[in-house]
Amino acid sequence: MKIGVIGGGQLGRMLALAGTPLGQQFAFLDPAPDACAQALGEHIRADYGDRDHLRQLADEVDLVTFEFESVPAETVAFLSQFVPVYPSAEALRIARDRWFEKSMFQDLGVPTPEFADIQSQDNLDAAVKRIGLPAVLKTRTLGYDGKGQKVLRHPEDVDGAFAELGSVPCILEGFVPFTGEVSLIAVRGRDGQTCCYPLVHNSHEQGILRLSVASTNHPLQSLAEDYASRVLDKLNYVGVLAFEFFEVDGGLKANEIAPRVHNSGHWTIEGAECSQFENHLRAIAGLPLGSTAKVGESAMINFIGSVPPVEQVTALADCHLHHYGKAFKAGRKVGHATLRCSDSAVLQARIDEVMQLIDKG
Amino acid sequence: MKIGVIGGGQLGRMLALAGTPLGQQFAFLDPAPDACAQALGEHIRADYGDRDHLRQLADEVDLVTFEFESVPAETVAFLSQFVPVYPSAEALRIARDRWFEKSMFQDLGVPTPEFADIQSQDNLDAAVKRIGLPAVLKTRTLGYDGKGQKVLRHPEDVDGAFAELGSVPCILEGFVPFTGEVSLIAVRGRDGQTCCYPLVHNSHEQGILRLSVASTNHPLQSLAEDYASRVLDKLNYVGVLAFEFFEVDGGLKANEIAPRVHNSGHWTIEGAECSQFENHLRAIAGLPLGSTAKVGESAMINFIGSVPPVEQVTALADCHLHHYGKAFKAGRKVGHATLRCSDSAVLQARIDEVMQLIDKG
Repeated sequence: MKIGVIGGGQLGRMLALAGTPLGQQFAFLDPAPDACAQALGEHIRADYGDRDHLRQLADEVDLVTFEFESVPAETVAFLSQFVPVYPSAEALRIARDRWFEKSMFQDLGVPTPEFADIQSQDNLDAAVKRIGLPAVLKTRTLGYDGKGQKVLRHPEDVDGAFAELGSVPCILEGFVPFTGEVSLIAVRGRDGQTCCYPLVHNSHEQGILRLSVASTNHPLQSLAEDYASRVLDKLNYVGVLAFEFFEVDGGLKANEIAPRVHNSGHWTIEGAECSQFENHLRAIAGLPLGSTAKVGESAMINFIGSVPPVEQVTALADCHLHHYGKAFKAGRKVGHATLRCSDSAVLQARIDEVMQLIDKG
Repeated sequence: MKIGVIGGGQLGRMLALAGTPLGQQFAFLDPAPDACAQALGEHIRADYGDRDHLRQLADEVDLVTFEFESVPAETVAFLSQFVPVYPSAEALRIARDRWFEKSMFQDLGVPTPEFADIQSQDNLDAAVKRIGLPAVLKTRTLGYDGKGQKVLRHPEDVDGAFAELGSVPCILEGFVPFTGEVSLIAVRGRDGQTCCYPLVHNSHEQGILRLSVASTNHPLQSLAEDYASRVLDKLNYVGVLAFEFFEVDGGLKANEIAPRVHNSGHWTIEGAECSQFENHLRAIAGLPLGSTAKVGESAMINFIGSVPPVEQVTALADCHLHHYGKAFKAGRKVGHATLRCSDSAVLQARIDEVMQLIDKG
């Protein structure tokens, strides 16, 4: 089976590393000449809207999937004429737009922060009156890693904020006094079979995920799985879907979903019986899903901007390096390390060691 | 770092799957148009003696390694002029020739079956008188998977046996009444650091490895490691070296070594902290070695001739599929499954399930 992937970054690269042992082959459509997934498959270098090359991809592969959710809707619609596309155009339409996303949460009874659609500064002023400050103004589409958003703390932050974000459709979200951020990586097969990995605690630095720690018997696991299954079934979803939640007052509020393999699930390569990458591929290929059970205690630490010297990372015990082969650049995710340990005390010590290595760099 | 691999089969493929997350890139020199490693790196399609293409490879990569031991000596010598080659020409010279290999065991005090150099039928007749029957006549070089050998049980089997194997240099080996076959996968770094995986019990079918089961606290582990370290240090070896032993009278007799990653070490991908593939690459790249400790109880089952339907293999619990992407052909290793379980009783049940799937095919 040959699988087409829209996007050829590290997620595509890790998909191919997981799928090759299943006998799958890969083609990546990505305009970047140095797309790092190209080491592991065919690279069709073209813009995401380039119909000739999209058609070429569709003709070569058995099905198409995505590495990122901001794929143009027209691209998805065009491809869908020729080849199965997972997740579906509808799932992408919802997930790429914060307004659709939060409206769906609300419709399904999944708690989410207060929110309002913002099409103008007037809308914003009215919404701030209703929701109050602090609040976060975010572009409805295309935001990631803290980009495309502005925290509004004081009345003067509100003035001109709509223009600051480019006068594009936005959403205002009420600030949530959360005690933690967790994510749930779920996967749903073509036949509706659904599995979830253990909840992951996430820590961010400057808006970018730095650390994910897989939990054990998290008290909110079944609640999170309940919320996830409502969304998965509603969308008739196929593949991996990542849910980000805020922990609030002993409950959960849904922040957003990502219709793809997710950074907070990278620990599953070593830390789970079957990784999120393999399970995404199993799901879209119509294969039985693999076990999402943990193997030991795991955490993932992102390398942002640069990867510490390989001889130093590989010298650390219980540490598994994932170098994406990308050019180093400030703020860019260029690799990660997974720690897999026998118990959580050892895990915490190992996390400290990796953090020290990063701080030295 | 870019690594050149002579040979582009499944071992090269699994090396690249292990090395890509270390940030390594790969080029494979292999004459086969369908060399299955090409999905994961550059494919230089050329004969192993093609100096122009060997030179091209040497110019492109930082170091060269091998997927098989029968690489022509001239190829190794030629490459060594331009680029570091691991393991060394001397290690390959010994390992590819059963006479050199067994003579080295003898010199190092490593027990091995009785053996004799056979250059003619007269040599053979004389050696059979000394060693007795049954015995095994093997070509000194190029034998694998039971090919290039003949078991001599009765005097009439001896007549003409030298000609039957092609009148090439052979070795006669005394038959060993072994109770089991085990292998030790060892790895030695550029700095001499040595690590060994747990001993593996191997079972063959028609001369081809079918099943490898990783042992726990094997009583012969330290003896095997002692023998291995003698050989590794003698050869100043760098990389993974596989040792095959017969279990005889509560001790070990060395059968042969393979100067490369080895089929009986494939279980380490899921079953050990750091796989034999990653450790080979760490060793030759001058990186610290990774842990050879087991993760759970593991076994590896080869798929010979064909891979059972992927949807059936992936439906099995605790089972990890490795499809090599090769054309199916009787007697050819085209994939394997690794089973990783919490205990050995479950492991045995899982082995039976995979065997049943194979028998159905």
